[in-house]
Amino acid sequence: MNPKIGVIMGSSSDWETMKHACDILDELAIPYEKRVVSAHRTPDLMFEYAERARERGIEVIIAGAGGAAHLPGMVAAKTTLPVIGVPVQSRALNGLDSLLSIVQMPGGVPVATVAIGKAGATNAGLLAAQILSTTDKDITEKLEARRLEMKAKAMESTGDLQ
Amino acid sequence: MNPKIGVIMGSSSDWETMKHACDILDELAIPYEKRVVSAHRTPDLMFEYAERARERGIEVIIAGAGGAAHLPGMVAAKTTLPVIGVPVQSRALNGLDSLLSIVQMPGGVPVATVAIGKAGATNAGLLAAQILSTTDKDITEKLEARRLEMKAKAMESTGDLQ
Amino acid sequence: MNPKIGVIMGSSSDWETMKHACDILDELAIPYEKRVVSAHRTPDLMFEYAERARERGIEVIIAGAGGAAHLPGMVAAKTTLPVIGVPVQSRALNGLDSLLSIVQMPGGVPVATVAIGKAGATNAGLLAAQILSTTDKDITEKLEARRLEMKAKAMESTGDLQ
Amino acid sequence: MNPKIGVIMGSSSDWETMKHACDILDELAIPYEKRVVSAHRTPDLMFEYAERARERGIEVIIAGAGGAAHLPGMVAAKTTLPVIGVPVQSRALNGLDSLLSIVQMPGGVPVATVAIGKAGATNAGLLAAQILSTTDKDITEKLEARRLEMKAKAMESTGDLQ
Amino acid sequence: MNPKIGVIMGSSSDWETMKHACDILDELAIPYEKRVVSAHRTPDLMFEYAERARERGIEVIIAGAGGAAHLPGMVAAKTTLPVIGVPVQSRALNGLDSLLSIVQMPGGVPVATVAIGKAGATNAGLLAAQILSTTDKDITEKLEARRLEMKAKAMESTGDLQ
Amino acid sequence: MNPKIGVIMGSSSDWETMKHACDILDELAIPYEKRVVSAHRTPDLMFEYAERARERGIEVIIAGAGGAAHLPGMVAAKTTLPVIGVPVQSRALNGLDSLLSIVQMPGGVPVATVAIGKAGATNAGLLAAQILSTTDKDITEKLEARRLEMKAKAMESTGDLQ
Amino acid sequence: MNPKIGVIMGSSSDWETMKHACDILDELAIPYEKRVVSAHRTPDLMFEYAERARERGIEVIIAGAGGAAHLPGMVAAKTTLPVIGVPVQSRALNGLDSLLSIVQMPGGVPVATVAIGKAGATNAGLLAAQILSTTDKDITEKLEARRLEMKAKAMESTGDLQ
Amino acid sequence: MNPKIGVIMGSSSDWETMKHACDILDELAIPYEKRVVSAHRTPDLMFEYAERARERGIEVIIAGAGGAAHLPGMVAAKTTLPVIGVPVQSRALNGLDSLLSIVQMPGGVPVATVAIGKAGATNAGLLAAQILSTTDKDITEKLEARRLEMKAKAMESTGDLQ
Repeated sequence: MNPKIGVIMGSSSDWETMKHACDILDELAIPYEKRVVSAHRTPDLMFEYAERARERGIEVIIAGAGGAAHLPGMVAAKTTLPVIGVPVQSRALNGLDSLLSIVQMPGGVPVATVAIGKAGATNAGLLAAQILSTTDKDITEKLEARRLEMKAKAMESTGDLQ
Repeated sequence: MNPKIGVIMGSSSDWETMKHACDILDELAIPYEKRVVSAHRTPDLMFEYAERARERGIEVIIAGAGGAAHLPGMVAAKTTLPVIGVPVQSRALNGLDSLLSIVQMPGGVPVATVAIGKAGATNAGLLAAQILSTTDKDITEKLEARRLEMKAKAMESTGDLQ
Repeated sequence: MNPKIGVIMGSSSDWETMKHACDILDELAIPYEKRVVSAHRTPDLMFEYAERARERGIEVIIAGAGGAAHLPGMVAAKTTLPVIGVPVQSRALNGLDSLLSIVQMPGGVPVATVAIGKAGATNAGLLAAQILSTTDKDITEKLEARRLEMKAKAMESTGDLQ
Repeated sequence: MNPKIGVIMGSSSDWETMKHACDILDELAIPYEKRVVSAHRTPDLMFEYAERARERGIEVIIAGAGGAAHLPGMVAAKTTLPVIGVPVQSRALNGLDSLLSIVQMPGGVPVATVAIGKAGATNAGLLAAQILSTTDKDITEKLEARRLEMKAKAMESTGDLQ
Repeated sequence: MNPKIGVIMGSSSDWETMKHACDILDELAIPYEKRVVSAHRTPDLMFEYAERARERGIEVIIAGAGGAAHLPGMVAAKTTLPVIGVPVQSRALNGLDSLLSIVQMPGGVPVATVAIGKAGATNAGLLAAQILSTTDKDITEKLEARRLEMKAKAMESTGDLQ
Repeated sequence: MNPKIGVIMGSSSDWETMKHACDILDELAIPYEKRVVSAHRTPDLMFEYAERARERGIEVIIAGAGGAAHLPGMVAAKTTLPVIGVPVQSRALNGLDSLLSIVQMPGGVPVATVAIGKAGATNAGLLAAQILSTTDKDITEKLEARRLEMKAKAMESTGDLQ
Repeated sequence: MNPKIGVIMGSSSDWETMKHACDILDELAIPYEKRVVSAHRTPDLMFEYAERARERGIEVIIAGAGGAAHLPGMVAAKTTLPVIGVPVQSRALNGLDSLLSIVQMPGGVPVATVAIGKAGATNAGLLAAQILSTTDKDITEKLEARRLEMKAKAMESTGDLQ
Repeated sequence: MNPKIGVIMGSSSDWETMKHACDILDELAIPYEKRVVSAHRTPDLMFEYAERARERGIEVIIAGAGGAAHLPGMVAAKTTLPVIGVPVQSRALNGLDSLLSIVQMPGGVPVATVAIGKAGATNAGLLAAQILSTTDKDITEKLEARRLEMKAKAMESTGDLQ
């Protein structure tokens, strides 16, 4: 099946974080592709990827990067598809640099930014699904079911407080 | 026409910021509604708003708040629609508190966070449009045209460097 | 005995921190209950818990959460009981996000915020007891005795500086 | 009537902030006293004030200070009454120093910290009232009524979004 | 004379800051060009500018930008000329976002980052001149003379301490 | 009378802050000198000043600087006299950069750092006096008297809370 | 020999840091005493210690504390001796809270603040010695000799760059 | 061959970071020297090194330091050669102090600042090479070739996302 979500990241070392986005897409059976696309090492590939994404049938791009994290914003500059940015936790500044580099975009070119690290990657997968859900009942139902499970688990977990 | 976007904010004092989201929706002729919905002053209204949004035909919720900005995240907890959070610039901490309160959501409940203040509100409007554009050619074309205008204006502005 | 203090937390993983609040309540023989109540996973339960707390005889609620820590503030929005918020230390930002999300509440809905992590949880237990002490001589005496012990231990600990 | 709440602050320049706590107490008709008590300029007075507060009938102390804001924590070290700390917005660091100096208390001596500046002072007044409300039905009713008014005003304020 | 330095900025509103770089180049009679080149509004122009700079005789690029400041780093990704990044002071976060977005580049693609705002722009002009000075005696002499003047003015300024 | 305190600053624009140190020395009748000594514009003068200070009878050096504030630390590296560093409030980062540049000295070369801005400059003057007071009864008495006045003023200022 | 320096700390757990101050005093053969004096657990002892220090022959007080580090500032409020504050590295915020709580003192009551952690404690010992050196030739010579050793070691250490 | 690049650092403990700059220079066969030159322990050596660097044939100085990192800025004050500053990751504040101390230089004396830690050191080596490349075709070619390799490796690394 053609991928609907493009999951890209600046380096293969970001996979440890970004796989959590893919886990969600697998769980919800949403077709996706995953690639290393580096703003600084493969800038032309990045532009080409962003430019051609819509015509290739991609509906949402998830882009993860750390430090001076330019990937999400530059991809967003080259497409009008929704781009979700995942700040990868950086070594020295714990991802605060990644977060600010991704979220503080100028008016005109938005990036939908999520939390730093694993929780953010998980939520990037869910946010992509929620975007598809606006016109896809099946995904809506899966998301609603997932929420019910989350709720059930949370309700039970009081038993773990020992 | 039925609103497709719900623009909500914690206080009427946030309107100064949030109107920039509405300006974009007006510009792109996307039907929306706007309301004060306060997480802390009208929590039940907030839950009801979030719960009923999808059935009322809303496709994206834009929520702006400042300080301990709980509105976007709590709305996101009560709907599986995409929720865009706009951190309103706060008095003492310049919106850093708003940003962290909105973006650092736990895995399971995403908020699509944009920049602090006016640029963020503008981008919230555009991001909502980009989400609709995934299945709406007309909006896609308008967004592409807007990008071309932005580009043209930027190209001309070298003349202003005096 | 009916619980006077409700100790709630967003996730069972917060127990490692929040148990220090319960240790204090055990030490002072103040009856309490402890539950996982998640703002984002069990929002309705959270509202119901907060709404019914006073009528159930709860006098103080202690709520711990990390990251975009909405639990204390949202509970505070649904009750006029005093709510103590404990910022749990988060992974990337070390609890600075938790602290700002909890403490920067808008005028109208206070949360009594304590320090990040273990010290804060301990102090949440003590603060709850101090609140009860305003009309309970027995607890006052226990708290005064505890202070004397703390003082005695501190005075002796000069001997450990080797 | 004997004051039940002691509102103290490190300097008369903090009054601009702290008067918002007193406004709330006036509104709720809770008797209070207000004084300048400086940790650094009148340390002995501070200790004496804290030590004698309970026997004088004070039930809650509200202490505001800025910068290296030691007043709330030092008062808390000398009483087992609940102490509410209000971080006053400082010149250079916008109150982040005040906030951390007040909230990061060691285990054993809690300070109930509220938001930086005016909102925090307002909430300090409300939190003091909420503490009294645990054993005072009259105050509970006033607080519940105040919440309803806040809600009503918020509901109406959508009309201001122009 | 062919420009040796390219001074570019993300928006004409950055000119207020970036003109200080041009003032230095004027003072030292180093030929330069100045242009608005926006990473987010004119990404293709940016790439073309960076790619062709060396062959056009440019020896150093000075790039100023604010917020999620991607211009310096993306230009650096498309040329092996030295790129100097000037963090323009942003509205909400005072340029801390600009600074981190520019300086925290991954290994492989350096940006020579200077201070936030006016002082940084001045120093960008001087740093470009110092780079040229490594093989240009005339510029070296001008820079040394400028240092002597700075020193003389500083020595005299004790007289202003009244 | 020979100066006992050397008050130096990186620029005449720091005088607005540093004059508060001199005001204290005037008030306490402690002889001092004041000069612009710039780490970056007059490095040799700085070294010579620091090296000769002790033999010239200077007992304490007060050094104020902003931004990458190297003056206090470099002076401290060239003398074994006590050096007090005053972080001058900087434009973009409000003096946080000045503070960290001054206080975070490596083991071996201390700088006695005081608060950012005016309060810090005032305290630098007082700290210099306190250092002299360790062997000067007259200054001790003046300092004790000053404390009593401060206390008296603070006690009276409760009257201003209207 | 009577102690000239009082080394105090808020908790015996601070000893790991504060012993580095004592190591310097041992090395320079300056008599000192060391004690646990806690602002929050032994406030009266703290005041008594500070009040009597001068008459007991103490010339400089070194005070280390972490988190809401009130010890140095409160001691400084009760004596006109020079007080050196050492910010102990805290768990969640790495000592930034300790630093701000110590350094941001209001005008009137200075604390001579040094770096966070071990380097700061070492420098506190040296700064105390430098203060004594203003009237003690023997200590001056020891300090000068120490500097020469430091220099010699640094010069040799180029050999370690392998 | 005479060194063209001087790599200096404040302490041999910085070598762990700074060796990454030397690795790049080795890889590109650019002659360099490496030395410990400490701003605080060997200030005179530092000045002499900076003053004589140009006449000795050095074209770029790379200076690494941590904490109150004065080395790059002070060297820059004594030469008009380009100085690249590498913020070494510090213990308590993770290099944020190092970064601000290096980058926030006043107008007149630039330091070309790179990222905190290893990536910054690598980029310091590359930036030095890029500066030489402005008049050296051989180095330009090596740098272009290195970019192509980086690109090729990035393109292949998608295969590692498992």
